[in-house]
Amino acid sequence: MRIEMYSHNAKRMKSNIIRELLKYTMEPEMISFGGGAPDPETFPRNELSEIARDVLKNEYKVCLQYGTTEGDKLLREEYFKLLESRDGITGLNLKNMIVVSGSQSSLDLISKVFLDHDSIYFISKPAYLGAASAFSIFSRNNEDLVLKDDGMDLDTLEKRLEEIKQKGDLLKVKFVYVVPNFHNPAGITLSLEKRKRLVDICERYDILIIEDDPYGSLRYNGESLPSLFKLGSYNRVLLLKTFSKVLSPGMRLGFIIGREDIIQAFIKAKQSTDLCTSSLTQRIAARYLQRYGLYSTIDETIKLYRRKKDIMLEELQEQFKDIPMKWTKPEGGLFVWATLPEEFDTHEMLDIALENRIIYIPGDAFSVQNGCNNSMRLSFCLPPEEDIVEGVKRLKKTILAYGNKKGLL
Amino acid sequence: MRIEMYSHNAKRMKSNIIRELLKYTMEPEMISFGGGAPDPETFPRNELSEIARDVLKNEYKVCLQYGTTEGDKLLREEYFKLLESRDGITGLNLKNMIVVSGSQSSLDLISKVFLDHDSIYFISKPAYLGAASAFSIFSRNNEDLVLKDDGMDLDTLEKRLEEIKQKGDLLKVKFVYVVPNFHNPAGITLSLEKRKRLVDICERYDILIIEDDPYGSLRYNGESLPSLFKLGSYNRVLLLKTFSKVLSPGMRLGFIIGREDIIQAFIKAKQSTDLCTSSLTQRIAARYLQRYGLYSTIDETIKLYRRKKDIMLEELQEQFKDIPMKWTKPEGGLFVWATLPEEFDTHEMLDIALENRIIYIPGDAFSVQNGCNNSMRLSFCLPPEEDIVEGVKRLKKTILAYGNKKGLL
Repeated sequence: MRIEMYSHNAKRMKSNIIRELLKYTMEPEMISFGGGAPDPETFPRNELSEIARDVLKNEYKVCLQYGTTEGDKLLREEYFKLLESRDGITGLNLKNMIVVSGSQSSLDLISKVFLDHDSIYFISKPAYLGAASAFSIFSRNNEDLVLKDDGMDLDTLEKRLEEIKQKGDLLKVKFVYVVPNFHNPAGITLSLEKRKRLVDICERYDILIIEDDPYGSLRYNGESLPSLFKLGSYNRVLLLKTFSKVLSPGMRLGFIIGREDIIQAFIKAKQSTDLCTSSLTQRIAARYLQRYGLYSTIDETIKLYRRKKDIMLEELQEQFKDIPMKWTKPEGGLFVWATLPEEFDTHEMLDIALENRIIYIPGDAFSVQNGCNNSMRLSFCLPPEEDIVEGVKRLKKTILAYGNKKGLL
Repeated sequence: MRIEMYSHNAKRMKSNIIRELLKYTMEPEMISFGGGAPDPETFPRNELSEIARDVLKNEYKVCLQYGTTEGDKLLREEYFKLLESRDGITGLNLKNMIVVSGSQSSLDLISKVFLDHDSIYFISKPAYLGAASAFSIFSRNNEDLVLKDDGMDLDTLEKRLEEIKQKGDLLKVKFVYVVPNFHNPAGITLSLEKRKRLVDICERYDILIIEDDPYGSLRYNGESLPSLFKLGSYNRVLLLKTFSKVLSPGMRLGFIIGREDIIQAFIKAKQSTDLCTSSLTQRIAARYLQRYGLYSTIDETIKLYRRKKDIMLEELQEQFKDIPMKWTKPEGGLFVWATLPEEFDTHEMLDIALENRIIYIPGDAFSVQNGCNNSMRLSFCLPPEEDIVEGVKRLKKTILAYGNKKGLL
């Protein structure tokens, strides 16, 4: 059959390297710093098991039937309570929230609702891969903002916005996409000063902020910073939340919180995307929140990840004294971002890594067009503690082998 | 904030009237022929309840974790067995199937993978609303094929294809979208002769067939016809299946079966759409198929719906002797399509219907651009038997009141 069948979009779509590398993680003796999958021991399996049984028996007319597109009312009410108690977000009503089928589907809906093919949006460099690929189906007019130690480069944002305004194209600019806490892949947190400045800039130029916060509850050190949603207003900021890192990714539950008319637009877009999110997983989650609260398990999860993060940072410190590699020191989340001298190509180096039975995600996976070739993402959430120590040693061996072979060290 | 924020798509999106009308179904004394939601008594709640408990306890590392984008291997294997035993479809392997988050999400993926803004596709008139709205986000170049008693008007298909070919635009034509069994909303089944002819036409012009078959297992009378997928080949036809009408819509599970390279394209598109379908609902469904098989409950379901369908058709026959309304006599599925004289406007008539405590879906909801104003969809699956009888009487009362008021009767 003819090859011209596919859309331009489909011809451009790249396979997600994180998902490609998954198959290697199953190989014997392999240690993976690759995926961002949570440790399954953090899932409250016994509680969920009992709740699922009860819900299916007693609430089958709800949990096995079609649900409303905006989501289970009970779940939204419970989630508002959480937002109020944990994030100090108040004054919202049910029309300010839509339940979605995992956070990726928030990004798909945002693309559909805001992006025309010539729309402009700002995104960090490195960027969260899932966001970059969802947005690029609808527009490839991204503007990159380099991530510094305290978050996105806002000088460039302001400069570019002014230039775009001078050209008369400001209405084409739709949003700034930001992962403020423990950025994926960079592990970086947006400073309070920059949060305030970002809200101010977006107010002045009248553009939206998409605040994607999957990791916010997983803070291991330092003090929580207020969300952009709280600093700005729900007229300016769309807040994306998910259960994938704090309850279970297998339930595929995410939330978008924002202005009523925008949520209404998401509801319409979702009707033609997946009609509604699973009534079963929504109702199980709602009853779980009612009986146990989300934070009954998070404290244990935080302890577990903090230990793993500390072990990785200590071992990097120990092993990489004499190698010119820098890395971020995250205060939460799941990722460390390591950067080698410019001549290194971590994608090419991956072959040697796999030989050494260690997996990381090469930096170019997180660049919308190109770049980040000398960086890599290291995830500490899944391997057992002793594997983290051994994995860092294998990483060193890999870098030495590649660097020596290429004459870079 | 500025109103130009939304994409052209978002500005055009209409709210789904079926979902809008849902709120009226909750009102006291209301009888609804509106939604296509299955009768919840057909859900195997006790079996699913036990399985959910077991799966969450014993397989938590799978069912609460991220899954692969293509779907749970166990579920795909079980579904292939079903396809083999019930539909005589053989010779496929795991790479010929992707699990999706309900059938609506198949339609979204198809749009992304095949449709550019100038792509042409054929769709029936009336059309399944969810398909029309998913496709129109990516292209509004639909060509309508009027539904006759034995299915789509294939003379028009052939004529239009030839015209498009003469214009040199054949490569823009991507697919014919067809619901061959018990069409939604029309209740019509594509005849065997037309099935063969449709496959033949699409072979000659080298275009795909999208065979959407949510209702195929719900046949109440007459003999099953072979699928287009079986008549054609998996190089030519993409087969869409779902659990929403035969197990539970709340689990949000659908399947696309087809050529390996196309499935691969869907996998890439799904990565940026919702990453993966719920591992939990997939594993529950897989274990359910293993323990009980899908058809242990379907026989009961068929008996229930057949009775309801017969009651509706008998009561229509009884009540509408002297009123110039025609309606389809479906051999399966959930819907009857009734058509009044051209001057009737069923959308306008809905106000009187709601006063009379009866809900139907006006025909214009199923027309991509416009038309079908004098038709309506009547669903018999949800109301109890006595309500079906009473509902048809209220419908008659509504039509008489509207027809007399407008001087049409």
